[in-house]
Amino acid sequence: MKALVYHGPGRKSWETVPDPKIVDGTDAIVRIDTTTICGTDLHILHGDVATVDAGRIIGHEGVGTVVAVGKGVTNFKKGDRVIISCITKCGTCAFCQAGFPDHCQSNDAGIGWLLGHRIDGTLAELVRIPHADFSLHHVPENVTDEQAVFLSDSLPTGYEVGVLAGAVKPGDVVAVVGTGAVGLASIMTTSLYGASRIIGIDTNAFRLRKAKEFGATDTVVAGEGAREKVLALTDGLGADVAIEAVGYPETLQTAISLVRPRGHVANIGVHGVPVEFPMEALWIQNLTITMGLVDATSTGTLLKMVASGRIKSEKMGTHTFKLKEIDKAWDVFANAAKEKALKVVLKA
Amino acid sequence: MKALVYHGPGRKSWETVPDPKIVDGTDAIVRIDTTTICGTDLHILHGDVATVDAGRIIGHEGVGTVVAVGKGVTNFKKGDRVIISCITKCGTCAFCQAGFPDHCQSNDAGIGWLLGHRIDGTLAELVRIPHADFSLHHVPENVTDEQAVFLSDSLPTGYEVGVLAGAVKPGDVVAVVGTGAVGLASIMTTSLYGASRIIGIDTNAFRLRKAKEFGATDTVVAGEGAREKVLALTDGLGADVAIEAVGYPETLQTAISLVRPRGHVANIGVHGVPVEFPMEALWIQNLTITMGLVDATSTGTLLKMVASGRIKSEKMGTHTFKLKEIDKAWDVFANAAKEKALKVVLKA
Amino acid sequence: MKALVYHGPGRKSWETVPDPKIVDGTDAIVRIDTTTICGTDLHILHGDVATVDAGRIIGHEGVGTVVAVGKGVTNFKKGDRVIISCITKCGTCAFCQAGFPDHCQSNDAGIGWLLGHRIDGTLAELVRIPHADFSLHHVPENVTDEQAVFLSDSLPTGYEVGVLAGAVKPGDVVAVVGTGAVGLASIMTTSLYGASRIIGIDTNAFRLRKAKEFGATDTVVAGEGAREKVLALTDGLGADVAIEAVGYPETLQTAISLVRPRGHVANIGVHGVPVEFPMEALWIQNLTITMGLVDATSTGTLLKMVASGRIKSEKMGTHTFKLKEIDKAWDVFANAAKEKALKVVLKA
Amino acid sequence: MKALVYHGPGRKSWETVPDPKIVDGTDAIVRIDTTTICGTDLHILHGDVATVDAGRIIGHEGVGTVVAVGKGVTNFKKGDRVIISCITKCGTCAFCQAGFPDHCQSNDAGIGWLLGHRIDGTLAELVRIPHADFSLHHVPENVTDEQAVFLSDSLPTGYEVGVLAGAVKPGDVVAVVGTGAVGLASIMTTSLYGASRIIGIDTNAFRLRKAKEFGATDTVVAGEGAREKVLALTDGLGADVAIEAVGYPETLQTAISLVRPRGHVANIGVHGVPVEFPMEALWIQNLTITMGLVDATSTGTLLKMVASGRIKSEKMGTHTFKLKEIDKAWDVFANAAKEKALKVVLKA
Repeated sequence: MKALVYHGPGRKSWETVPDPKIVDGTDAIVRIDTTTICGTDLHILHGDVATVDAGRIIGHEGVGTVVAVGKGVTNFKKGDRVIISCITKCGTCAFCQAGFPDHCQSNDAGIGWLLGHRIDGTLAELVRIPHADFSLHHVPENVTDEQAVFLSDSLPTGYEVGVLAGAVKPGDVVAVVGTGAVGLASIMTTSLYGASRIIGIDTNAFRLRKAKEFGATDTVVAGEGAREKVLALTDGLGADVAIEAVGYPETLQTAISLVRPRGHVANIGVHGVPVEFPMEALWIQNLTITMGLVDATSTGTLLKMVASGRIKSEKMGTHTFKLKEIDKAWDVFANAAKEKALKVVLKA
Repeated sequence: MKALVYHGPGRKSWETVPDPKIVDGTDAIVRIDTTTICGTDLHILHGDVATVDAGRIIGHEGVGTVVAVGKGVTNFKKGDRVIISCITKCGTCAFCQAGFPDHCQSNDAGIGWLLGHRIDGTLAELVRIPHADFSLHHVPENVTDEQAVFLSDSLPTGYEVGVLAGAVKPGDVVAVVGTGAVGLASIMTTSLYGASRIIGIDTNAFRLRKAKEFGATDTVVAGEGAREKVLALTDGLGADVAIEAVGYPETLQTAISLVRPRGHVANIGVHGVPVEFPMEALWIQNLTITMGLVDATSTGTLLKMVASGRIKSEKMGTHTFKLKEIDKAWDVFANAAKEKALKVVLKA
Repeated sequence: MKALVYHGPGRKSWETVPDPKIVDGTDAIVRIDTTTICGTDLHILHGDVATVDAGRIIGHEGVGTVVAVGKGVTNFKKGDRVIISCITKCGTCAFCQAGFPDHCQSNDAGIGWLLGHRIDGTLAELVRIPHADFSLHHVPENVTDEQAVFLSDSLPTGYEVGVLAGAVKPGDVVAVVGTGAVGLASIMTTSLYGASRIIGIDTNAFRLRKAKEFGATDTVVAGEGAREKVLALTDGLGADVAIEAVGYPETLQTAISLVRPRGHVANIGVHGVPVEFPMEALWIQNLTITMGLVDATSTGTLLKMVASGRIKSEKMGTHTFKLKEIDKAWDVFANAAKEKALKVVLKA
Repeated sequence: MKALVYHGPGRKSWETVPDPKIVDGTDAIVRIDTTTICGTDLHILHGDVATVDAGRIIGHEGVGTVVAVGKGVTNFKKGDRVIISCITKCGTCAFCQAGFPDHCQSNDAGIGWLLGHRIDGTLAELVRIPHADFSLHHVPENVTDEQAVFLSDSLPTGYEVGVLAGAVKPGDVVAVVGTGAVGLASIMTTSLYGASRIIGIDTNAFRLRKAKEFGATDTVVAGEGAREKVLALTDGLGADVAIEAVGYPETLQTAISLVRPRGHVANIGVHGVPVEFPMEALWIQNLTITMGLVDATSTGTLLKMVASGRIKSEKMGTHTFKLKEIDKAWDVFANAAKEKALKVVLKA
């Protein structure tokens, strides 16, 4: 088969590799029908993710068709159309049984993100999915691939690590710092679950325009004076919840500066360096600050909302390519702001 | 009457001042029967709390007897024996109605801690309590002053900002960094509410011994190797909850280092400088970090537990003095480690 | 002033009565600008509510303008435009402080519903509101009277006693038994807060049509075969939540029959007789069954949603009258099904 | 091997039957070291449980040693000492993944209670455990069989269906109607998790005495005047939570009558007939009523508490027998009140 192989920092190629095979009885082999590239894949190519070895097929999102299952798989069979979760859930360890497969303890790394990281991933024609019973989802007939593919990772991340971790309540004012794909996923799901006001904050005009399309009630250009503008959109005390969807010290500090006493700050961004927290001012503010990897345990819930037409997940995909055009798709996604791209859709 | 007046950094005196009077219809005047000194009072004397003006009577804890009430007070009358909450709750602002009087918006500072801070406090023979209906608690007959006085602030702080904010669940392993009075208040209330293992961490041998008396199942001497010892007391992944009860960058960083993925860190300590968070490692750990001032809304619950004998709050008081001996009591409390003191009890 | 006075079963009159006056310092006098009639008012006229004395001005919903306040009122002043809560909240008793003013203990009845019940109500030109600081809400400029009037009781009841008590979660299937005004209030708020499917069940075609307009995704005619139809709209196991908004044994038993194992049944209906529960079948089903009077503590949250345009509360009002035409309005509302009426709006 | 076989109503025998064998790859075979009889087993023998076929080996509690595992079992191996959960959890169906194995959908009955019900059970020398990874628990070395055996069903039932479903909060007054083995399990776990007052209610003096030993602060003899006595132990309004642990209409009605407005009623009892609820009085009381089968998902938490010495589960066992003396043990347990028995312990 063909797959996108990472060959060390800055080097990738769409090349012929051996087909994956069933290894454990709980495996499934899935033929990729539709997939997409994640910001994390860009980081891998930059060499920022030390735990990805050269030779690894990358990618951790996708919709496909089951072509084979091991003897221990009970929920899926050949021919089933499935969403592949970005998190591989063993289902039996203590973290998985507690509902936290992001820290699945069945592997040495103690992490649920294996696809395109510790094992071969989804930017390929075929992929092996361990623990298939827990790591795949059936796709209802009325849900298209272009809707379903964003339920592997993008929407669950914005929803779980942003909206749920941020404990958004009906009536809340929510500020989202960074309105790229993940920030927009938070906006889309926040707007649906009862926020009264959603404020998108970014430096990029295209992204701010998209924020409005995804459900933001207001947008603010990031930078000088942004905090005052956000506070003016509240009762003067700040937002109930701020969601950080970038991953820099300044953006996290901005998010912290936007919330009121008793506020929540939900960090989604992947950080590369330490961040200084102004604890001399914060200790008395009764803030709750959260951070984390997605569990993707909300995929089922989000799928119901997509199926009933209440979430328009297809809006995440702005550009479509053939899977074999992946280099071209990569370039578009790597220059998302300039290309006015959110997520690229790759079709087999 | 006599009261302890702050006259600027390093200067205090027990002196004669005018008696307080009813100012608003919702006020009560309380005669102090039993009071105590808080670590925050030491900070005030050091000049660390800029919002305390010279001339202020300090103190925010106490048990006393109502001597007068304004016309708008309905829950209390002359002669009632009461606990004075360290938080003055207006009851009607949005924060108070939502259950968060720590950020009461009825005053310019937007803060519920007024006594001995913005208005005269409880280290005095008499004190004026605004919003008495919301800021006093009736004391059941079978609860002594020596038990009740620690429900003004100490126990609620350890319980609310430590145990409740840390979301301690039955079966949890809880690590408490700093086993002074507030850390011990967390240990006492954590042990009662279902933790399976409570680990006290401190540098001071007296405090570690007290930790065991207050319910810690294990103690660890802070410093080199402490993290490894704590992890060895868990399944190797760390504690479910770490409570910080000191207020330095290192102690907060220690607390953060002790929790497992999905863990909670509850900061109680008052910080004076920024703290660097290792977000490059934490972002993926799904931590929840909280911090804050006490609401003292748990006083009623804790009072029921004290009344039924299930919390032995009197263990917090190690030394007893006459109120007029306050200078002597102050010296003991200011040298708590050396004096083997937790809290001092001052009796009228 | 003029007011609607109840003179015993079957007897009411719009007549001249003395103006209300400030009695306690925490009172306000409000001039009614817009009001409405509740199903409970119909019950009162039928003589079903024994605790309403002859001579009582009835009504407990309304929007108006403050014309006078007592000295103890701090949140409101003359000229303020306000929503009158159907629940009079003293704010200081244990139930009120815990957020449950429906069982306010400041009166002998231990109940928060006083207006038009134990004291004179809102179907009048003027009304006295005790505990005004806790029982009124400011109306934002961009919210009309026709939107605001349904936040006194109707919307909070459908939302609190239906949606919140029923613990509706994102993705849930919710069945609403009875799609009159209160059932529709549940549908309107359920559809907003993440339900994936909302099934309205009623015998009346007009009401079922309205159910769709208010956000139901499906409707089922009550009676023979209805249960099977509802189950067919789920995975065969039943709804996650059933909301009962009628008040008869059969409708509550229907609601119970519609939920899956682990389901929730939220009873809103006012019952007049005991109801037999099939506990021999239910004990193993892990159901949660709730019931209750509204607290109206959600009015602030709902008001934010109305102000931001996310809840169209004005859809509840189908007919508008002058306040002095109240007898005509009453007749329309008392024959709601025939008149194709939901709620009537009465304007001063 | 030898096992206790049910041969239809009133007929059981301890007889020789074939040894169980691995059927599915996810099975384990466990040699029973310690087991016990459940009240449900008595019901089965009476013929009350129509879904138990003649020829069935009964029993669903036990501690034992793994003697064989299928190829798909990863958490357990030969020689492991284990607690057998009364609930067989497939782990992969939607209910199991949501944490509700009591309604596991992997079998036709849609129920997680299979052992000694739909498949052969634990009153035997050997037992086959399907889905072993999800249905067994490792026993720590410092926990004895006599402590562990009550974590199969008794303690989890009292805790989950009573304490957790009843939402007991710190400071609550909890009334437990029926202080047999399951009611005592609720008392034991309620007293640990922060209740301020626990009132045991029963007709039997031995059981009431045991209630005090298990942590009740007060006991009341059931019958005439009991309600008044319970209310007098509260502020006059009733208990926060009432737990029903019997299963008759009168006992459930009693439990309902004991709670205050906003109270919780948690039904644990197995009911055989419908129960009339006084909805004409209850609708306004804002009660929450729950009922259900145990999930046994709390076994891990309770095991930590037993291991740390905070729950003394061994107090449940009042009589010990050899497994082969099961007929004698049965007679004692079937006459528990007369024999002053709670649970019988059967040792291999």
